[in-house]
Amino acid sequence: MLHFDSDYMEGAHPELMRRLAETNLEQTPGYGLDEHCRCAERLILDACSLEHGRVHFLVGGTQTNATVIDAILARHEGVLAAETAHINVHEAGAIEASGHKVLTLPQHDGKISAADVRRYIDDYYADETYEHAVAPGMVYISHPTELGTLYSLDELSALSSVCREAGIPLYMDGARLGYALASSDSDVALADVARLCDVFYIGGTKVGALFGEAVVTSRPELMPHFFSIVKQHGALLAKGRLLGVQFETLFTDNLYVDLARHACLMAGKLRRAFVSHGYRLFIDSPTNQQFFVLPNSVIDALSKVATFELWGPRRAVETPVRFVTSWATRESDVDELISALPQCPAAG
Amino acid sequence: MLHFDSDYMEGAHPELMRRLAETNLEQTPGYGLDEHCRCAERLILDACSLEHGRVHFLVGGTQTNATVIDAILARHEGVLAAETAHINVHEAGAIEASGHKVLTLPQHDGKISAADVRRYIDDYYADETYEHAVAPGMVYISHPTELGTLYSLDELSALSSVCREAGIPLYMDGARLGYALASSDSDVALADVARLCDVFYIGGTKVGALFGEAVVTSRPELMPHFFSIVKQHGALLAKGRLLGVQFETLFTDNLYVDLARHACLMAGKLRRAFVSHGYRLFIDSPTNQQFFVLPNSVIDALSKVATFELWGPRRAVETPVRFVTSWATRESDVDELISALPQCPAAG
Amino acid sequence: MLHFDSDYMEGAHPELMRRLAETNLEQTPGYGLDEHCRCAERLILDACSLEHGRVHFLVGGTQTNATVIDAILARHEGVLAAETAHINVHEAGAIEASGHKVLTLPQHDGKISAADVRRYIDDYYADETYEHAVAPGMVYISHPTELGTLYSLDELSALSSVCREAGIPLYMDGARLGYALASSDSDVALADVARLCDVFYIGGTKVGALFGEAVVTSRPELMPHFFSIVKQHGALLAKGRLLGVQFETLFTDNLYVDLARHACLMAGKLRRAFVSHGYRLFIDSPTNQQFFVLPNSVIDALSKVATFELWGPRRAVETPVRFVTSWATRESDVDELISALPQCPAAG
Amino acid sequence: MLHFDSDYMEGAHPELMRRLAETNLEQTPGYGLDEHCRCAERLILDACSLEHGRVHFLVGGTQTNATVIDAILARHEGVLAAETAHINVHEAGAIEASGHKVLTLPQHDGKISAADVRRYIDDYYADETYEHAVAPGMVYISHPTELGTLYSLDELSALSSVCREAGIPLYMDGARLGYALASSDSDVALADVARLCDVFYIGGTKVGALFGEAVVTSRPELMPHFFSIVKQHGALLAKGRLLGVQFETLFTDNLYVDLARHACLMAGKLRRAFVSHGYRLFIDSPTNQQFFVLPNSVIDALSKVATFELWGPRRAVETPVRFVTSWATRESDVDELISALPQCPAAG
Repeated sequence: MLHFDSDYMEGAHPELMRRLAETNLEQTPGYGLDEHCRCAERLILDACSLEHGRVHFLVGGTQTNATVIDAILARHEGVLAAETAHINVHEAGAIEASGHKVLTLPQHDGKISAADVRRYIDDYYADETYEHAVAPGMVYISHPTELGTLYSLDELSALSSVCREAGIPLYMDGARLGYALASSDSDVALADVARLCDVFYIGGTKVGALFGEAVVTSRPELMPHFFSIVKQHGALLAKGRLLGVQFETLFTDNLYVDLARHACLMAGKLRRAFVSHGYRLFIDSPTNQQFFVLPNSVIDALSKVATFELWGPRRAVETPVRFVTSWATRESDVDELISALPQCPAAG
Repeated sequence: MLHFDSDYMEGAHPELMRRLAETNLEQTPGYGLDEHCRCAERLILDACSLEHGRVHFLVGGTQTNATVIDAILARHEGVLAAETAHINVHEAGAIEASGHKVLTLPQHDGKISAADVRRYIDDYYADETYEHAVAPGMVYISHPTELGTLYSLDELSALSSVCREAGIPLYMDGARLGYALASSDSDVALADVARLCDVFYIGGTKVGALFGEAVVTSRPELMPHFFSIVKQHGALLAKGRLLGVQFETLFTDNLYVDLARHACLMAGKLRRAFVSHGYRLFIDSPTNQQFFVLPNSVIDALSKVATFELWGPRRAVETPVRFVTSWATRESDVDELISALPQCPAAG
Repeated sequence: MLHFDSDYMEGAHPELMRRLAETNLEQTPGYGLDEHCRCAERLILDACSLEHGRVHFLVGGTQTNATVIDAILARHEGVLAAETAHINVHEAGAIEASGHKVLTLPQHDGKISAADVRRYIDDYYADETYEHAVAPGMVYISHPTELGTLYSLDELSALSSVCREAGIPLYMDGARLGYALASSDSDVALADVARLCDVFYIGGTKVGALFGEAVVTSRPELMPHFFSIVKQHGALLAKGRLLGVQFETLFTDNLYVDLARHACLMAGKLRRAFVSHGYRLFIDSPTNQQFFVLPNSVIDALSKVATFELWGPRRAVETPVRFVTSWATRESDVDELISALPQCPAAG
Repeated sequence: MLHFDSDYMEGAHPELMRRLAETNLEQTPGYGLDEHCRCAERLILDACSLEHGRVHFLVGGTQTNATVIDAILARHEGVLAAETAHINVHEAGAIEASGHKVLTLPQHDGKISAADVRRYIDDYYADETYEHAVAPGMVYISHPTELGTLYSLDELSALSSVCREAGIPLYMDGARLGYALASSDSDVALADVARLCDVFYIGGTKVGALFGEAVVTSRPELMPHFFSIVKQHGALLAKGRLLGVQFETLFTDNLYVDLARHACLMAGKLRRAFVSHGYRLFIDSPTNQQFFVLPNSVIDALSKVATFELWGPRRAVETPVRFVTSWATRESDVDELISALPQCPAAG
């Protein structure tokens, strides 16, 4: 059986496993106060071209979103996000559980626009009774989005400008950031992200690590007492050095982006095959998640050789599906899947 | 200056003031454990044709919504509501502050449809990863809605059926329930509300009381330990009998609906005048809130003689506005406003 | 039957009722944005000798504590309070429900000492792992305390100094503040409270009003966006002017303290009678709550003529009880109670 | 430099590292829905002699406590715990952040007594106004306690009986459970824990794993929708099989207890040496944490050769300290520390 369900089906890239084994009996203080974490922080800040800044290491994505958003927002504030945002639809209410509202904006291919953010903020303050409503306190974007799409440098710059004019932080969920940086369609470099966002995280779980997300900020003052807030969220890893060792390795010799590039190449190959077989894209994604609309009969046939996700509930005739590649995807698996792919019946 | 800003600009109906004065020096236990509250409960259950049930008295609307919703929902559940619902847009995040997500549905004239509720629930459970999302745990409707519109008996019955099939409670925010019951356009009686909803509240603040909302439920087991939860929300009035006395009075000799009927008559008069002067309805409301789209020049002119609310931010040329009547609205004020109303310039 | 259960058994002082009736049909904006609230604010600031400052009006005590504490504390902070503090034992977890820990200190006659506060803060920061614990973010005191006792001016000044040195706000729960100001044993004036506390509230519910608590602060910057936070807590009264009218009246011609003085006189009379009949004080209180330790047989006998509270669960032989007077206590009721009081059997 | 700061200074036992490497490229579904987790669950239930039951795997201890407690408690309930409990003093308010109060009981050597639990519950319901206070909804104990001490089988049985009579769950924090099971002083076996507690967790982080805690319950109905609540707490590990693989290994061939036994032996050796050198025990602990009261001069001297923790702030003359051993402690390190230990000056 071939597996294209997600980008977290394997463990870690072997080089990370090697380093974890190598450092296994070192004795270090806990909670990220060790040399590996400090070293990883320096490597990441360098990769971000940030002279000043801070890097904190957390374990998982939902946890990171909930903790960072809670650390940034005041009690009366909410977070602006696309209606399709992970924090809005797929985190079991983690943001609300810590008391904050997700204020939704229309999504365009999974993205929000600077114009919509601006309009929301303007309308909010133009309303005489605005103090009865939740104040927009920050903006959340994901890059790549939940649909695999990417912000262009222009789009990201515009969002950043709107946020800075309004005086609210821009936060990027980079659970799959590597796949954005490695995409041949992207004009946004890591240093752009670091310059244009106030806080963002570099996802490890889905890009080569066993687990781990690196929260980067050029403005640590936005999250005062962050250590305690991480602890309060149950997000403080006792053996924090495990995160340090992994990110040290990922940010040595460009491993992080190299791993992601492989996934993007595999995804591109898959995409071209589906298109050439007559299938319709559900969305046009340049990263490691590919979305197609497949006739249910094809879904049933493919399910005999491969696992993949229905994107939402199964519909009557055809249903959107998602195939995901990762740093670990074998090209032979991709080839095997393609060879099992029938021509699209409708496209006969 | 004439005032049509809201239905909470005056104190209480004189009969309530008289009873409050009359009972002022009675000595009663606090927290709603007094005879006036028990008597008001019986009067309300009778008016609802409920043999069994409970009535709890709270002070204000946002407080009541937050407390009831928190009492009903489990941790992993959210409340389904129209995107225009008061709990979604005008309660400063009170629902989220107690940890729950508002799951929004499209609104049609301020209402949600049984079909949309059904689809949401079906789609939720049809998704293989549903446990990663907030579960729909109850349905919130307002009647009249925030736009003054009303559910028909058919619509309310359909919502009730969907909820009961799905096993989730239907809750009605009746902040202005009196104006619904008194509307000549309504085919929903109080006993229908009590029969079709699992929990609802009868609004006093906007219908003749100084303050006070009566939470009615035919299924007290939906809100176990409600007393403690009310206390935890800071919603337990020490001198609870003030609520009992007021609702006793409102539910004697049909005062509650009589007061509301006057407001509906005044609103109808206003509505006919605006329409006959050529103005466009923003929404077609049969209750005490009337919404018109007025040219900004007319808004400026009317603002010299009357206060009323812009409905959202002021737009470039014309802007929706809201005029509200209440049990206390003087017909002479309505007449004076009408006489100050110019013909619609565009309709010239 | 005589009633000494609490100081919230009656409605409001007749002068407040008169003013509420007189202003009943005035039309004002809601939410405390009316002239009565502004006027009451000015009267209160004058009474407090505060040139600058703000006054916000809320409905009840638990609500006020939860809202103010939530407005002041950061996410990682808790509130220091006596183990007997109302917020710790009698508010159904309202503080924790909004996410904050009550950090308890030993109580001495219901009070906390400046030395204990200082030691707590010093020990907190002396611990190398302090960031794993909840930071002391403010201090809560009640005056009178839950046991009717009072801080002396020296004690209050010392607390204030410790807080200011540590840079954390001092907050006073003044649910019964009037009874402190009126007590012949007190050397703390209202202006002292306003000068030494950063935020405090003047209780209306238990001192002559139907309901209402006036939050006073000389440092409004401690509670930014307070209006929205009040709304979020469901604590924003629609007809806010009801609070304004009542506090206007209470702070005209010294009514607030005069009402409280009557209660203190009645309590003193009761106290002297119990003592002279041989009963033991549970605590020595100079205000309107009096605590005695009574043999259960006496409790049973008195319960035939009067209602009062057991202070905690009934014990085997004798049990602490509380008798409360108020602005509304009739001297004839006090006399009647005294005449029904047997000599203490043990003291026989 | 020797290190006795904590039991989480190294990575994982080599056998776990080997298994993680061996399974690294397996492709499994995420979120604990894999075969390793199922297998680990079966091994653990067997070790617990539980025919029925569930095991859930989480990442860290504070996270596990916050998630389990939030899953068990209703809104109006709190958790009874020793004043020294980890959840009360060292989790940065994680319990309160999810809305629940920690109700403290006196500690005796870090433990609570069945009698105190019983008294708390009895007193709670004996108070007429109990609904104004937080209800005791569950009991939290740690075993070993934060002070390294152990409940005897009698003590644990008594706690269990009290809880079952009162109808509230007993929850054990087993962050260091292995060290309890391995202690020669303990008469409590794992099957006793499983039989007497309703929910407990088996700590991996501090007993041989990289990270991971196994929540075991014989009554899954106490935590309905636990998966979603774990997700909401940000506690759902994407690559959940990492937890499965580690616990599979720990519960094969009795590795878990064998690892812990080594630590207890090393701790015993350390303890005997300190005692024979004349030092006073701060507490008499039969597990891997040892607490001594050392003159500050000795602390300064030892700090040149070893790291260890001050237990609370440094005092004027002598200060309690903690030395911790683990599965990874080298006997040569223990010997080296002992040889560096001076005779107690006072005991000269």
